[in-house]
Amino acid sequence: MHGVTGSLQLNKNVASRPRVVILGAGFGGLNATLTLKHAPVDITLIDRRNYHLFQPLLYQVATAGLSPAQIASPIRRIVAAQRNVTVFMDRVWDIDLAREEVITSQRRIPYDYLIVATGARHTYFGKDDWEIFAPGLKKIDEAIEIRRRILLAFEQAEITEDVETRRRLLSFAIIGGGPTGVEMAGAIAELAKKTVVRDFRNFDPGQARIFLIEAGPRILPSFSERLAESARRQLEKLGVQTVVNQAVTACDQKGVALRNGSRIDAATIILAAGVMASPAAKWLKVPTDRAGRIIVETRLNLPGRRNVFVIGDTASVTDARKRVVPGVAPAAKQMGRYAARAIIALLEGRETQHFVYRDYGDLATIGRKSAVVQIRRFGITGVPAWFLWSFAHIWFLVGFRNRVSVFLDWIWSYVTYQRDARLITGREG
Amino acid sequence: MHGVTGSLQLNKNVASRPRVVILGAGFGGLNATLTLKHAPVDITLIDRRNYHLFQPLLYQVATAGLSPAQIASPIRRIVAAQRNVTVFMDRVWDIDLAREEVITSQRRIPYDYLIVATGARHTYFGKDDWEIFAPGLKKIDEAIEIRRRILLAFEQAEITEDVETRRRLLSFAIIGGGPTGVEMAGAIAELAKKTVVRDFRNFDPGQARIFLIEAGPRILPSFSERLAESARRQLEKLGVQTVVNQAVTACDQKGVALRNGSRIDAATIILAAGVMASPAAKWLKVPTDRAGRIIVETRLNLPGRRNVFVIGDTASVTDARKRVVPGVAPAAKQMGRYAARAIIALLEGRETQHFVYRDYGDLATIGRKSAVVQIRRFGITGVPAWFLWSFAHIWFLVGFRNRVSVFLDWIWSYVTYQRDARLITGREG
Repeated sequence: MHGVTGSLQLNKNVASRPRVVILGAGFGGLNATLTLKHAPVDITLIDRRNYHLFQPLLYQVATAGLSPAQIASPIRRIVAAQRNVTVFMDRVWDIDLAREEVITSQRRIPYDYLIVATGARHTYFGKDDWEIFAPGLKKIDEAIEIRRRILLAFEQAEITEDVETRRRLLSFAIIGGGPTGVEMAGAIAELAKKTVVRDFRNFDPGQARIFLIEAGPRILPSFSERLAESARRQLEKLGVQTVVNQAVTACDQKGVALRNGSRIDAATIILAAGVMASPAAKWLKVPTDRAGRIIVETRLNLPGRRNVFVIGDTASVTDARKRVVPGVAPAAKQMGRYAARAIIALLEGRETQHFVYRDYGDLATIGRKSAVVQIRRFGITGVPAWFLWSFAHIWFLVGFRNRVSVFLDWIWSYVTYQRDARLITGREG
Repeated sequence: MHGVTGSLQLNKNVASRPRVVILGAGFGGLNATLTLKHAPVDITLIDRRNYHLFQPLLYQVATAGLSPAQIASPIRRIVAAQRNVTVFMDRVWDIDLAREEVITSQRRIPYDYLIVATGARHTYFGKDDWEIFAPGLKKIDEAIEIRRRILLAFEQAEITEDVETRRRLLSFAIIGGGPTGVEMAGAIAELAKKTVVRDFRNFDPGQARIFLIEAGPRILPSFSERLAESARRQLEKLGVQTVVNQAVTACDQKGVALRNGSRIDAATIILAAGVMASPAAKWLKVPTDRAGRIIVETRLNLPGRRNVFVIGDTASVTDARKRVVPGVAPAAKQMGRYAARAIIALLEGRETQHFVYRDYGDLATIGRKSAVVQIRRFGITGVPAWFLWSFAHIWFLVGFRNRVSVFLDWIWSYVTYQRDARLITGREG
């Protein structure tokens, strides 16, 4: 292993600086890369996509509020000036821990330090046949597919002459009452009741029915009970019906079946639940928790490997203060910075600290001027929460250009109620 | 036939106003619809897409300069306030001239007046096997596919260790030296030599080779010889090689073969030639010219049918002054307005004028600060032409929101050389 003692690399020239390989340019991998900007290392950053995605706003692409390019930044542009980084757009096939190499579809890439930050996908709980009926929301292409389905449902409702068909087309079922589900439900309600309300001649889009289905006893389980109840009321005002204590047992093209035997007819079904880590555990041949995440130590390294870090949604972490680290963007960023600093410490022969998660709060928006924010024991709701939510999301967007563009778009939407990315693309075109 | 004499509709109440069916919401169909805003008619506007596309800027989507939503406006939003319009997103299957009905995938829609404005597609000159190697540029999904190929070629050039492969990946062949081909060539050259120039570590993107291949004796045949030569020189300065008098005889995944027996190796091939009208002639069972366009009279109506108009790229028109009307956006808009006014005249029992095309000029951009503009016998080149081009394209974009957004984006790109829609999406994602 290279450089752990801090003396080895002193004997080497620049051409053979320690090699850091980072898998994934999400919040974790990207922040690790940027933190190593001035470190005497050669970084290879590998991602299967050519952009970093600001996932917290992906639901806005799915509901036609933003364009994909507004929440995605080319990875190469972000690190263009950081000369110690080489970016490969490639797929990871395996990791050879014995030879310390990452195997991609094109190359074998040796590492001295490895950061695995390949994120998570959604899972259908073993029911993969749901996928065609209920797309999930993790990738841009999935968001575009969901946008296509939502907009197409309204288009078909205008053409059909059958009342039952129209009713089903104007029904939307969202599976999962976490922040993504809440945000999707609120955005679809707004789309129907505000944005397109004057656009159709054969029906009233305000009649659209939106169902938010949660298996647990309440929506937003990570928030306090008071805030979850506030969110439920705010959603109700927008016309969203929340259905709790009801697991979905089946999906088909006409709707969903619930555990209690009832059905909800809906032409559009969206999966906002079921997160499963990337296949990193398979590459590393290590055990995982139930969500496929690798259980790492409080230094975020693979047990027994001080030079291999697993971070973000790929890792199951209980920090040095015994708190379970949640699968949110700020946590992934903190882990990315931590892993980068740990590598610098190892290179310099210093002892590394344990990882401590700093909880800055949890937030979800429900629609125009309404949101819920949980900062430790404090809760904020309504307009102030919405402003805080908007500010945070614009602030943390990657790239000045995106920040300005999203800011202007939101002002525009705020004044006009318009959602300007209302394009049905993909398939057939 | 309804309303042609101007007396019939006086006997009818509002509920049975003359029915105008418009096929296609491109420049022609949309302008016809808007011109009929205050006419006492019921309009059904049918398009297979839910948006009006500003096709002159489609090459900017294909080269990552703009996002799809910036050049597309939802049709419903454009006509939301025009209460005499119903929009159907649907496909036309046939037209029953005897019963005066349009047959779509969902309905039979009767008309008193019909405007056929279904535009054009590209054609592979009967060689449909070229399609997978050389996508054309008529639809948003095609533009996204071309963008994917261009950006992916650079990504793969970074990964490959084979010099020959890299050379082929960095070669781009554009078939067709008209305005679209010139604009694509200039934009790819700029992308390589300015935008991504600092982004790669294993090669210099400035080495990219761009070939603009034209079968005829010179590029831009619709412009004067002097302007075409100026464009050629401006392209050369950007590193684009123009190849004239050379038809492409074959396409495969390694490049193109030319009539003189030589080959150009290129991983990315783009078809910017070969326009074929939509299948409207088949629906109407009428003969066409070689490009599949329906030959109409100087009142733009189908021979023998005063109430059926064919306009835009679907029509082959020689106007009342014996000039051949070109297949450009301003001509389609003029024809749309003309057809709408002709319907109003028929309704009011007035005689209709013949169609006269007003030629406001022809323009093509080559890159930052360089363009060619032909206004009748006058030609403009370089920076003034570029400003005129930019102004015209922003001015004619549909929707205030798009105008502001594209304007800001161009200022941003102008200052930074960035193209912010550099996302590789579609397929796999």
